[in-house]
Amino acid sequence: MVTSSDESSQFLPRFNESGLITCVTMDSTTQDILMVAYMNEEALQETLRTGRAVYYSRSRKALWRKGEKSGNWQEVQEVRVDCDQDCLQLLVKQTGGAACHTGRHSCFYRRIKSGQSTELEFIDQNRLFDPTQVYGKSSTE
Amino acid sequence: MVTSSDESSQFLPRFNESGLITCVTMDSTTQDILMVAYMNEEALQETLRTGRAVYYSRSRKALWRKGEKSGNWQEVQEVRVDCDQDCLQLLVKQTGGAACHTGRHSCFYRRIKSGQSTELEFIDQNRLFDPTQVYGKSSTE
Repeated sequence: MVTSSDESSQFLPRFNESGLITCVTMDSTTQDILMVAYMNEEALQETLRTGRAVYYSRSRKALWRKGEKSGNWQEVQEVRVDCDQDCLQLLVKQTGGAACHTGRHSCFYRRIKSGQSTELEFIDQNRLFDPTQVYGKSSTE
Repeated sequence: MVTSSDESSQFLPRFNESGLITCVTMDSTTQDILMVAYMNEEALQETLRTGRAVYYSRSRKALWRKGEKSGNWQEVQEVRVDCDQDCLQLLVKQTGGAACHTGRHSCFYRRIKSGQSTELEFIDQNRLFDPTQVYGKSSTE
Protein backbone atom coordinates (compact mmCIF):
# COMPACT_ATOMS: atom_id res chain seq x y z
CA MET A 1 0.00 0.00 0.00
CA VAL A 2 1.37 3.43 -0.92
CA THR A 3 1.01 5.76 2.06
CA SER A 4 0.99 9.55 2.19
CA SER A 5 4.42 9.45 3.85
CA ASP A 6 5.82 7.69 0.75
CA GLU A 7 4.92 10.78 -1.27
CA SER A 8 5.71 13.42 1.34
CA SER A 9 8.19 16.26 0.88
CA GLN A 10 8.80 16.42 4.60
CA PHE A 11 11.88 14.73 6.00
CA LEU A 12 10.65 12.67 8.93
CA PRO A 13 13.33 10.04 9.57
CA ARG A 14 12.11 7.02 11.50
CA PHE A 15 14.61 5.96 14.13
CA ASN A 16 14.24 2.42 15.47
CA GLU A 17 13.55 1.39 19.07
CA SER A 18 17.23 2.01 19.87
CA GLY A 19 17.03 5.53 18.43
CA LEU A 20 19.06 4.60 15.34
CA ILE A 21 18.57 4.76 11.59
CA THR A 22 20.47 2.62 9.07
CA CYS A 23 22.72 4.51 6.69
CA VAL A 24 24.19 3.18 3.44
CA THR A 25 27.15 5.20 2.29
CA MET A 26 28.08 5.29 -1.37
CA ASP A 27 31.11 6.77 -3.09
CA SER A 28 29.63 9.51 -5.28
CA THR A 29 32.36 9.07 -7.88
CA THR A 30 32.64 5.29 -8.25
CA GLN A 31 29.08 4.43 -7.08
CA ASP A 32 30.55 1.69 -4.87
CA ILE A 33 28.85 1.01 -1.58
CA LEU A 34 31.53 1.93 0.93
CA MET A 35 29.89 0.92 4.21
CA VAL A 36 26.69 0.52 6.19
CA ALA A 37 26.46 2.18 9.59
CA TYR A 38 23.97 3.79 11.95
CA MET A 39 23.08 7.32 12.98
CA ASN A 40 21.21 8.62 15.97
CA GLU A 41 19.43 11.99 15.83
CA GLU A 42 22.54 13.85 17.02
CA ALA A 43 24.81 12.20 14.42
CA LEU A 44 22.33 13.01 11.66
CA GLN A 45 22.01 16.65 12.70
CA GLU A 46 25.79 17.06 12.93
CA THR A 47 26.18 15.44 9.50
CA LEU A 48 23.68 17.86 7.98
CA ARG A 49 25.19 20.84 9.76
CA THR A 50 28.87 20.14 9.03
CA GLY A 51 28.67 18.29 5.69
CA ARG A 52 30.88 15.52 7.06
CA ALA A 53 29.54 12.04 7.84
CA VAL A 54 29.02 11.37 11.54
CA TYR A 55 27.69 8.00 12.66
CA TYR A 56 26.82 6.43 15.97
CA SER A 57 29.07 3.58 17.10
CA ARG A 58 26.97 0.86 18.69
CA SER A 59 30.03 -0.82 20.21
CA ARG A 60 31.46 2.36 21.72
CA LYS A 61 28.03 3.92 22.39
CA ALA A 62 29.29 7.26 21.16
CA LEU A 63 29.28 9.57 18.17
CA TRP A 64 31.66 8.37 15.50
CA ARG A 65 33.10 11.20 13.44
CA LYS A 66 34.28 9.15 10.49
CA GLY A 67 37.89 10.03 9.74
CA GLU A 68 38.65 11.58 13.13
CA LYS A 69 41.52 9.16 13.68
CA SER A 70 42.43 8.15 10.12
CA GLY A 71 41.95 11.52 8.44
CA ASN A 72 39.73 9.75 5.91
CA TRP A 73 36.72 12.06 6.20
CA GLN A 74 33.58 11.65 4.14
CA GLU A 75 32.40 14.88 2.52
CA VAL A 76 28.65 14.51 2.09
CA GLN A 77 27.34 15.43 -1.35
CA GLU A 78 23.77 14.26 -0.95
CA VAL A 79 21.48 12.56 1.59
CA ARG A 80 18.66 10.40 0.25
CA VAL A 81 15.90 8.69 2.18
CA ASP A 82 13.90 5.60 1.27
CA CYS A 83 10.15 5.25 0.79
CA ASP A 84 9.23 4.60 4.43
CA GLN A 85 11.98 6.88 5.74
CA ASP A 86 13.67 4.27 7.93
CA CYS A 87 16.90 4.20 5.92
CA LEU A 88 19.29 6.84 4.61
CA GLN A 89 21.69 6.83 1.69
CA LEU A 90 24.70 9.12 1.84
CA LEU A 91 26.63 10.01 -1.29
CA VAL A 92 30.11 11.05 -0.24
CA LYS A 93 33.52 12.04 -1.45
CA GLN A 94 35.82 9.67 0.44
CA THR A 95 39.04 11.37 1.51
CA GLY A 96 42.00 9.03 0.98
CA GLY A 97 39.80 6.64 -0.98
CA ALA A 98 39.48 4.11 1.86
CA ALA A 99 36.34 3.80 3.98
CA CYS A 100 37.07 0.44 5.60
CA HIS A 101 39.09 0.05 8.80
CA THR A 102 41.07 -2.71 7.03
CA GLY A 103 42.48 -0.04 4.72
CA ARG A 104 40.36 -1.04 1.74
CA HIS A 105 38.18 1.25 -0.41
CA SER A 106 34.93 -0.46 0.63
CA CYS A 107 33.87 -2.71 3.53
CA PHE A 108 32.34 -5.05 0.93
CA TYR A 109 35.56 -6.63 -0.32
CA ARG A 110 34.44 -10.28 -0.24
CA ARG A 111 31.71 -12.18 -2.03
CA ILE A 112 30.25 -15.65 -1.66
CA LYS A 113 31.89 -17.96 -4.18
CA SER A 114 29.59 -18.78 -7.06
CA GLY A 115 27.42 -21.83 -6.33
CA GLN A 116 28.60 -22.01 -2.73
CA SER A 117 27.06 -20.97 0.56
CA THR A 118 29.94 -21.00 3.03
CA GLU A 119 33.05 -19.89 1.17
CA LEU A 120 34.11 -16.33 0.43
CA GLU A 121 36.50 -14.94 -2.13
CA PHE A 122 38.25 -11.59 -1.97
CA ILE A 123 37.43 -9.08 -4.69
CA ASP A 124 39.71 -6.37 -3.32
CA GLN A 125 43.02 -6.94 -1.57
CA ASN A 126 44.39 -3.48 -2.17
CA ARG A 127 45.02 -1.60 1.08
CA LEU A 128 45.18 2.15 0.78
CA PHE A 129 46.60 2.48 4.27
CA ASP A 130 48.14 0.20 6.88
CA PRO A 131 45.50 -0.27 9.60
CA THR A 132 48.00 -1.03 12.36
CA GLN A 133 49.76 2.28 11.65
CA VAL A 134 46.52 4.25 11.71
CA TYR A 135 44.59 2.60 14.50
CA GLY A 136 47.21 0.67 16.46
CA LYS A 137 45.81 -2.49 17.95
CA SER A 138 42.86 -1.28 19.99
CA SER A 139 40.41 0.86 18.05
CA THR A 140 38.92 1.18 14.59
CA GLU A 141 38.29 4.90 14.23
CA MET B 1 41.54 -3.24 15.10
CA VAL B 2 41.65 -5.70 12.21
CA THR B 3 40.40 -9.08 13.43
CA SER B 4 40.93 -12.53 11.94
CA SER B 5 37.26 -12.57 10.88
CA ASP B 6 37.88 -9.48 8.71
CA GLU B 7 40.33 -11.55 6.68
CA SER B 8 38.52 -14.87 6.77
CA SER B 9 37.37 -16.80 3.70
CA GLN B 10 34.58 -18.41 5.68
CA PHE B 11 31.09 -16.99 5.35
CA LEU B 12 29.83 -16.57 8.90
CA PRO B 13 26.98 -14.04 8.71
CA ARG B 14 26.19 -12.36 12.01
CA PHE B 15 22.47 -12.10 12.58
CA ASN B 16 21.33 -9.54 15.16
CA GLU B 17 19.40 -10.24 18.38
CA SER B 18 16.20 -10.55 16.30
CA GLY B 19 17.85 -13.13 14.03
CA LEU B 20 18.12 -10.67 11.11
CA ILE B 21 20.88 -9.34 8.91
CA THR B 22 20.71 -6.06 6.96
CA CYS B 23 20.82 -6.41 3.21
CA VAL B 24 21.55 -3.62 0.72
CA THR B 25 20.37 -4.47 -2.77
CA MET B 26 22.00 -2.87 -5.77
CA ASP B 27 21.03 -3.00 -9.44
CA SER B 28 23.98 -4.78 -11.07
CA THR B 29 23.48 -2.87 -14.30
CA THR B 30 22.90 0.72 -13.14
CA GLN B 31 24.72 0.42 -9.77
CA ASP B 32 21.77 2.20 -8.13
CA ILE B 33 20.86 1.16 -4.61
CA LEU B 34 17.39 -0.29 -5.05
CA MET B 35 16.38 -1.02 -1.47
CA VAL B 36 17.48 -1.98 2.01
CA ALA B 37 15.78 -4.93 3.69
CA TYR B 38 16.43 -7.77 6.13
CA MET B 39 17.01 -11.49 5.89
CA ASN B 40 16.73 -14.21 8.48
CA GLU B 41 18.71 -17.44 8.11
CA GLU B 42 15.90 -19.09 6.13
CA ALA B 43 15.57 -16.18 3.69
CA LEU B 44 19.32 -16.15 3.12
CA GLN B 45 19.49 -19.90 2.49
CA GLU B 46 16.54 -19.75 0.07
CA THR B 47 18.17 -16.80 -1.74
CA LEU B 48 21.42 -18.72 -2.15
CA ARG B 49 19.61 -21.91 -3.21
CA THR B 50 17.18 -20.38 -5.72
CA GLY B 51 19.17 -17.37 -6.99
CA ARG B 52 16.19 -15.09 -6.33
CA ALA B 53 16.13 -12.53 -3.53
CA VAL B 54 14.08 -13.54 -0.51
CA TYR B 55 13.82 -11.22 2.47
CA TYR B 56 12.13 -11.33 5.85
CA SER B 57 9.28 -8.91 6.34
CA ARG B 58 9.42 -7.47 9.84
CA SER B 59 5.86 -6.11 9.60
CA ARG B 60 4.34 -9.36 8.34
CA LYS B 61 6.75 -11.58 10.31
CA ALA B 62 7.11 -13.86 7.30
CA LEU B 63 9.40 -14.67 4.39
CA TRP B 64 9.09 -12.09 1.64
CA ARG B 65 9.76 -13.54 -1.79
CA LYS B 66 10.42 -10.29 -3.60
CA GLY B 67 8.30 -10.17 -6.76
CA GLU B 68 5.83 -12.86 -5.67
CA LYS B 69 2.92 -10.47 -6.13
CA SER B 70 4.33 -7.95 -8.59
CA GLY B 71 6.30 -10.32 -10.82
CA ASN B 72 9.30 -8.05 -10.29
CA TRP B 73 11.75 -10.72 -9.16
CA GLN B 74 15.35 -9.99 -8.33
CA GLU B 75 17.79 -12.39 -9.98
CA VAL B 76 20.84 -12.48 -7.73
CA GLN B 77 24.16 -12.09 -9.53
CA GLU B 78 26.43 -11.77 -6.52
CA VAL B 79 26.28 -11.67 -2.70
CA ARG B 80 28.92 -9.63 -0.89
CA VAL B 81 29.51 -9.35 2.83
CA ASP B 82 31.10 -6.53 4.80
CA CYS B 83 34.18 -6.61 7.01
CA ASP B 84 32.47 -7.70 10.24
CA GLN B 85 29.92 -9.85 8.39
CA ASP B 86 26.83 -8.15 9.83
CA CYS B 87 25.67 -6.74 6.50
CA LEU B 88 25.11 -8.17 3.04
CA GLN B 89 25.15 -6.55 -0.38
CA LEU B 90 23.14 -8.17 -3.15
CA LEU B 91 23.81 -7.37 -6.79
CA VAL B 92 20.67 -8.18 -8.73
CA LYS B 93 19.02 -8.01 -12.09
CA GLN B 94 15.70 -6.32 -11.32
CA THR B 95 12.86 -7.76 -13.41
CA GLY B 96 10.58 -4.98 -14.65
CA GLY B 97 13.09 -2.37 -13.52
CA ALA B 98 11.13 -1.35 -10.42
CA ALA B 99 12.11 -2.47 -6.92
CA CYS B 100 9.99 -0.01 -4.92
CA HIS B 101 6.38 -0.68 -3.94
CA THR B 102 5.55 2.84 -5.21
CA GLY B 103 6.40 1.64 -8.73
CA ARG B 104 9.71 3.45 -8.90
CA HIS B 105 13.08 1.95 -9.86
CA SER B 106 14.60 2.54 -6.41
CA CYS B 107 13.21 3.16 -2.92
CA PHE B 108 15.65 6.09 -2.66
CA TYR B 109 13.75 8.55 -4.86
CA ARG B 110 13.97 11.60 -2.57
CA ARG B 111 16.86 13.61 -1.19
CA ILE B 112 17.18 16.33 1.41
CA LYS B 113 17.18 19.70 -0.30
CA SER B 114 20.60 21.26 -0.38
CA GLY B 115 21.30 23.33 2.75
CA GLN B 116 18.08 22.18 4.43
CA SER B 117 17.33 19.63 7.12
CA THR B 118 13.57 19.10 6.91
CA GLU B 119 12.59 19.38 3.26
CA LEU B 120 12.82 16.68 0.61
CA GLU B 121 12.86 16.89 -3.15
CA PHE B 122 11.97 14.10 -5.54
CA ILE B 123 14.70 12.87 -7.84
CA ASP B 124 12.54 10.23 -9.54
CA GLN B 125 8.84 10.52 -10.27
CA ASN B 126 8.76 7.89 -12.98
CA ARG B 127 6.51 4.97 -12.04
CA LEU B 128 7.21 1.76 -13.91
CA PHE B 129 3.96 0.23 -12.67
CA ASP B 130 0.78 1.41 -11.00
CA PRO B 131 0.99 0.27 -7.36
CA THR B 132 -2.80 0.20 -6.83
CA GLN B 133 -3.14 -2.19 -9.78
CA VAL B 134 -0.40 -4.48 -8.52
CA TYR B 135 -0.97 -4.47 -4.79
CA GLY B 136 -4.51 -3.17 -4.37
CA LYS B 137 -4.89 -1.20 -1.19
CA SER B 138 -3.76 -3.58 1.50
CA SER B 139 -0.34 -5.09 0.89
CA THR B 140 3.02 -4.18 -0.56
CA GLU B 141 4.29 -7.47 -1.97
